[in-house]
Amino acid sequence: MNVVVFTGGVGGAKLCDGLARSVGEEHLTIIVNTADDFELYGLHISPDLDTVMYTLAGIANPVTGWGIEGDTFNNFAMLERYGVSPWFHLGDRDLATHLLRTQLLREGMPLSMVTRVLAQRLGVKARLLPMTDDRVRTVVDTDEGLFHFQEYFVRLRWQPEVRSLIYEGVEEAHPNDEALRAIEIADTIIIAPSNLYFSIDPILALPGMKDALLNAAAPIIAVTPIIGGEAVKGPAAKLMRELGEESSAVAVARHYADFLNGFVLDERDAELEPRIACMGMGVLVTDTLMTDRDARARLACEVINFADQLRPEKLGGCRADLLPPQR
Amino acid sequence: MNVVVFTGGVGGAKLCDGLARSVGEEHLTIIVNTADDFELYGLHISPDLDTVMYTLAGIANPVTGWGIEGDTFNNFAMLERYGVSPWFHLGDRDLATHLLRTQLLREGMPLSMVTRVLAQRLGVKARLLPMTDDRVRTVVDTDEGLFHFQEYFVRLRWQPEVRSLIYEGVEEAHPNDEALRAIEIADTIIIAPSNLYFSIDPILALPGMKDALLNAAAPIIAVTPIIGGEAVKGPAAKLMRELGEESSAVAVARHYADFLNGFVLDERDAELEPRIACMGMGVLVTDTLMTDRDARARLACEVINFADQLRPEKLGGCRADLLPPQR
Repeated sequence: MNVVVFTGGVGGAKLCDGLARSVGEEHLTIIVNTADDFELYGLHISPDLDTVMYTLAGIANPVTGWGIEGDTFNNFAMLERYGVSPWFHLGDRDLATHLLRTQLLREGMPLSMVTRVLAQRLGVKARLLPMTDDRVRTVVDTDEGLFHFQEYFVRLRWQPEVRSLIYEGVEEAHPNDEALRAIEIADTIIIAPSNLYFSIDPILALPGMKDALLNAAAPIIAVTPIIGGEAVKGPAAKLMRELGEESSAVAVARHYADFLNGFVLDERDAELEPRIACMGMGVLVTDTLMTDRDARARLACEVINFADQLRPEKLGGCRADLLPPQR
Repeated sequence: MNVVVFTGGVGGAKLCDGLARSVGEEHLTIIVNTADDFELYGLHISPDLDTVMYTLAGIANPVTGWGIEGDTFNNFAMLERYGVSPWFHLGDRDLATHLLRTQLLREGMPLSMVTRVLAQRLGVKARLLPMTDDRVRTVVDTDEGLFHFQEYFVRLRWQPEVRSLIYEGVEEAHPNDEALRAIEIADTIIIAPSNLYFSIDPILALPGMKDALLNAAAPIIAVTPIIGGEAVKGPAAKLMRELGEESSAVAVARHYADFLNGFVLDERDAELEPRIACMGMGVLVTDTLMTDRDARARLACEVINFADQLRPEKLGGCRADLLPPQR
């Protein structure tokens, strides 16, 4: 059983946790966005990788979704005493991850290997892959100017109006080789309920990544990050509106339509099912909110079963003729 | 009033604190050993500078003498979870100093300016000067091999037998210009009760530093780090024995004899006074232990008064004819 997940941070990490519990961590390959990575005091910080890693290691902060449970912020307090007010709050324990990662990167180890070392030491058995070892950075073009992602997201709290996004460096970046191979031999490929533009698109923009999906034998299923026209967390819906899209699950399905075989729609949006089904993909309507750990595992199970339903048709070949599954 | 202090970490920092309270911080120029500096996870750590800075800022850990009072070690605990067991424990707050210092150094700021920035932000008014902006590192040649200072000191707890010391890089290093100028115009120069070999000798070994002391107009006074043949803290006495010296205050006075005008001997060693006086320097016999903050200020006052007693003779010129002061 080989399950491949494309993911960003918090929402995607929850689904990964559910998948880990329902199909077993060792069957998971998780391809993680690194276009949000940034440097603070010379430390290399990979927010999405850390969120997924902490979540799978069972040490994620359950309230925020990011950072480490029970972490303290004494380092931060001291930085403030020095008159430095970083807009990104790093916990004392969390800082250990960044210190080690930065040290290993400086010693010449690629990010993928650093990630493997860190994840293994925290007991994570899933294969956690940064989308690339190369530097890709999301730049947000807004009505207030150009900002690096974290500045826009954390410091400006995604308030400026977005005109477009640039994934700086993505054309020259090499997608992670293991990721490409995993997609090739996958039984199921899942696009996690992560931000389309900030988390999933940078991965898809890597040279060869979209082709890998188009050539994949496995059914490809996306779980909606939009419920009732709003993002479960973060700026996805606001961004869709600013970029001239309909802020709804329909637009998410349309966004991924050229490679998608199935779409998991939230039950609160059940009336949108026909509009998505007519794009030629299967639709599973269910509760996608993942309010607790059991809900994560339940949703993960449903997604895997949904993929199994899609598989025969997929193997049959005609993607466009797929019927929506019976509810 | 210009008082210049040569110092290492804990013991010297206590005397600096006493001087700050007795003559006023703004009259102090403190030349600090940096041969103990080292890198951990790519962070530049300056233990002696930090100890003096934290002490003057009133945030030093009163129990250990180093680190910050009330600091936590959650970062360290997380590093251990990663399977990394650093032999140097960095507190969460303390880490902020190293992060900022390293960032500023990487941006090209010299250590002296970095030190000024950090000290100012913590409200330190004394002039805190690293002995040099260049890289000098103490290497300890022992019966178990060569070790960098911190490894010998912290990891091996100064157990190996020392054969000799190497101040790597010292010949090419430039002493801090401000330090040289401060020595020239000083009213009093004090060698703090720090380790002779690890804290004071690296400063003295800088090209031009010993000449600056020999040419100084101010009386130069050393406070003994040895009481009853043992170091108040650390390996000084053990080291003196291993290097074939007598482990006593007499050997300390002899070590500095060529530029010293006065020596502050502990009252527990009063019987050594004639042996030191006959080296041609003034001797003050008093309680040097600095068991609390009042004791620091009291000792500092006594040292300053002692210098005043020595000044006329010094200005008179004949250093060798100095009489030991009356008790």
